[in-house]
Amino acid sequence: MSESLLKRLDLNKGDKWDSMLQGISDVASLPDPTGKLTYASELDDNLELYRISCPIGVLLIIFEARPEVVVNIAALAIKSGNAAILKGGKESNRTADLLARAISSGLSKTALPPTYIQTIQTRSEVASLLALDQYIDLVIPRGSNSLVRNIQNNTRIPVMGHADGLCSVYLDESADLQKAIRVVVDSKTDYPSACNSTETLIVHESLLSTIWPAVGKALLAAGVKLLCDPSTLLAISSLTPQPSNFQTHVSPSDASSYAIEHLDLTLSVVALPSLSAAMEFINQHSSHHTDCIVTESESAASAFCRGIDSAGTFVNASTRFADGFRYGFGTEVGISTGKIHARGPVGLEGLVIYKYVLRSKGADGHIAGEFGTGAGKKQFKHKPIEGTSLPF
Amino acid sequence: MSESLLKRLDLNKGDKWDSMLQGISDVASLPDPTGKLTYASELDDNLELYRISCPIGVLLIIFEARPEVVVNIAALAIKSGNAAILKGGKESNRTADLLARAISSGLSKTALPPTYIQTIQTRSEVASLLALDQYIDLVIPRGSNSLVRNIQNNTRIPVMGHADGLCSVYLDESADLQKAIRVVVDSKTDYPSACNSTETLIVHESLLSTIWPAVGKALLAAGVKLLCDPSTLLAISSLTPQPSNFQTHVSPSDASSYAIEHLDLTLSVVALPSLSAAMEFINQHSSHHTDCIVTESESAASAFCRGIDSAGTFVNASTRFADGFRYGFGTEVGISTGKIHARGPVGLEGLVIYKYVLRSKGADGHIAGEFGTGAGKKQFKHKPIEGTSLPF
Repeated sequence: MSESLLKRLDLNKGDKWDSMLQGISDVASLPDPTGKLTYASELDDNLELYRISCPIGVLLIIFEARPEVVVNIAALAIKSGNAAILKGGKESNRTADLLARAISSGLSKTALPPTYIQTIQTRSEVASLLALDQYIDLVIPRGSNSLVRNIQNNTRIPVMGHADGLCSVYLDESADLQKAIRVVVDSKTDYPSACNSTETLIVHESLLSTIWPAVGKALLAAGVKLLCDPSTLLAISSLTPQPSNFQTHVSPSDASSYAIEHLDLTLSVVALPSLSAAMEFINQHSSHHTDCIVTESESAASAFCRGIDSAGTFVNASTRFADGFRYGFGTEVGISTGKIHARGPVGLEGLVIYKYVLRSKGADGHIAGEFGTGAGKKQFKHKPIEGTSLPF
Repeated sequence: MSESLLKRLDLNKGDKWDSMLQGISDVASLPDPTGKLTYASELDDNLELYRISCPIGVLLIIFEARPEVVVNIAALAIKSGNAAILKGGKESNRTADLLARAISSGLSKTALPPTYIQTIQTRSEVASLLALDQYIDLVIPRGSNSLVRNIQNNTRIPVMGHADGLCSVYLDESADLQKAIRVVVDSKTDYPSACNSTETLIVHESLLSTIWPAVGKALLAAGVKLLCDPSTLLAISSLTPQPSNFQTHVSPSDASSYAIEHLDLTLSVVALPSLSAAMEFINQHSSHHTDCIVTESESAASAFCRGIDSAGTFVNASTRFADGFRYGFGTEVGISTGKIHARGPVGLEGLVIYKYVLRSKGADGHIAGEFGTGAGKKQFKHKPIEGTSLPF
C-alpha cells in the first residue's frame, strides 16, 4: 500500500477528523438549497411563471478509498433532499461500513427512512445499478480518468465526473519571488495526494536565471522531486552550492511527464516563452480542474482567468484552495471536471435542479391559442416578478 | 409523409416564420448570459472568490425535421458564446441547408469564423462526432426516447435529452367546468404534433357524470379521437344527443395507450379515485415534461406542484405554454426532460456553465497551509461580497 493511500485511509491524520465533523455542522447550518425561487415572470395578467429549486432524486456516488467522504456526501445528500447510494474504494470498506452504520442509526431517529443513504461494497453492484437509468438520476464517480470514462461507457445515467486533478502553476514574467516560492511550494507539498495539488510548473523563460532557481531550491528543500525540461534543468544545475538532494531529486522530463497526476512529491517543470504559450500549454495538458498564475500584472491575470478553460483559475493563490470547504460550501460531493451542471467543487447547489411552476389565476384559466402574432391575439408580458420568496 | 410532419416542414405555416424571426430579435436583445457574477465570497483578507458564467464550449445538437430550429439554435449558440454543430431531420435537409448558408454568410461579416455554426447531414457524421468527447462538450438530442437512449448508449459526451413529450392534464375534484374545457381542448388541439401537447387526460372519478362528459363533447367537437378506460367510456356513452363522430372517434383504451406520444388529435383518458392516485399515475407514466392540474383548490394545486416530478407543473394553464419563447427566453434549444444542468425549455441560461476565479491581493500571495483547525492557523471568513458586477 502506498504512503499516500495509507494517509488517505487514516481519519486521525492531521485535522481530517475535525474537518469532517466541522463539515457536517457547516452543511447543517447552510440554507436549504431546495424550494428557492430563482426566476419569476408574469407572462400575462394572472399567469405567473416560477422556477423553483428541487432535489435531483437518487444519486449514485463512487469514490476513492477516502472514508470521510461517506460522511461528507451523506450530509450534502440529506440536506439537499437527495437519496444516495455510496461506494467507496475497497481499502476503506471497514471504516466506511462503520460510518454508514452510524448514519443509518441517526436516520432511524428521523422521519427519513434509514435506507435513505445506502452503501454498497462491490463493483458488480455498481455494474447492476448503472443499468437502472429509470431510477437513478445522476452518477458521480470520483477517481481516475479511466474510472470516469469506464462509467461513462457503461451507463445512460448522466455522469458528473470528478476525474484527474492535473493542476498547474504558471510563473508569469512579472511574478513576485516570494509569492512564487510560497504558492508553488504550498500547491505541491501541502497535501500531495489530493486532486488539487499541483503537478506541473510552467516558468516564463525570462525567469530562468532569476526566480526559477530560487523556486527550485525551495522545492528541493521541501523534498520535491523535479522532472525538468532541458532549459529549466540547465538553469537549476547552476545552483551553488548544489542542494544535497540534487542528484536524487532532479531529472529530465519527457513528454509524458506533463500528462501525469503524480499524487506524490514529484513536480514536472517546463519553460515557455510567453503567457499565450503557457495558456495554450495548460488548455492542452490540464484536466480543467484548477490552474494558477503568479503575476503582478493585472492584464496578465485577467487574460489568464478568461483564457484558461478550467473550473478554477487562480491568481497568486495556491491550487490547494480548490475545495468545497475552503470555498465555503461546508463540504463537497466532488470536484467536477466536466462542463455541464456543476463545475469545480460541488456542494449543495450542485445537487439540486429546478422545476417550473406556471399558475393561472384567470377567471377561465389560460390557453395558448389566445396568444400569437395574428390579429386579436394576446402578447406575452414577460414582466419580472419582484421578490425572492414563493407566493404560495 | 404524415400530415403532422408536413406541417412541421412548412415554415410558412401559421405564424412560424414570424415567430422564428421574432425569436432571433428576442435572443439578441436578451442580456449576455456569460460574464455574469453568480457568487462572490471573501475567503480571507485580500483573498476573493468569484463564480462567473462562461460558455460551455462546443455543442452537438440533433433535432427533428423542423427547419426553424437551425435558426433558433444558431441564435442561442452565438449569443451564449458556444460553437455548434447542427443535424436536423433528413426531411428538412434542403430548408436547413439554405438557412445554414444564410447564417454562414451573416457570420462572415463578423469577427466570428463562418464555421462557428456548422450543419451536418448524415447519421454517419453524427456517429463519428459522438466519439470526440475531448472536443465536444455537450450533445443535445431532440426527438424520440429511442433517439436519446441510442445517443446515450454511444457516447461519453454529456447528453441533455429532449425526449418524448408525454404530457397530461388532471381534472381535480374541484375543477371548474369552463377552465377544464378550455385547458384540455387547447392542450390537445393547439398544435398536436408539438412535444408540449397533452396526450393523456386524467379525470377524478367524482367528475364522471358532470364535467367529463362536457369536456369529452368539446373534444369530439374539435375532432379529437378519445381512447377511454371503461369508466370514462361508459360515462361518455350516455351523452345525448350522441355527437355525430362518436362511433369513429371514441374507442376503448388499453394499458399501452398511456405510454404513447400520439402527436396527433388522439387523447387517452382515464378516471382515478383521488389526487394522490393521479399524481402516482403521472409520475409513473409521464415523460417528466409538463403536467397540469385543473383545480379550484389551493391545497390540491400546491400538492400537485410539489409532488409531480416534471420539468413543468401547471395550474389551470395549457401544457402548450411549456416553451422557451412563451417562458420569455427568446427561443429554446430544446426542452430538457433530464434532471441535471437544465430542465424544461432551455434558453441561454441552459447553454452556459461557470468557472471560479480566486484572486489574492495579499502581499505574499495566499497558501493553504496557513489555514486549518490547529493552533496558530488562520480561519476562513466566507463573507459574502456585495454587488453583482465583476471588480476586474
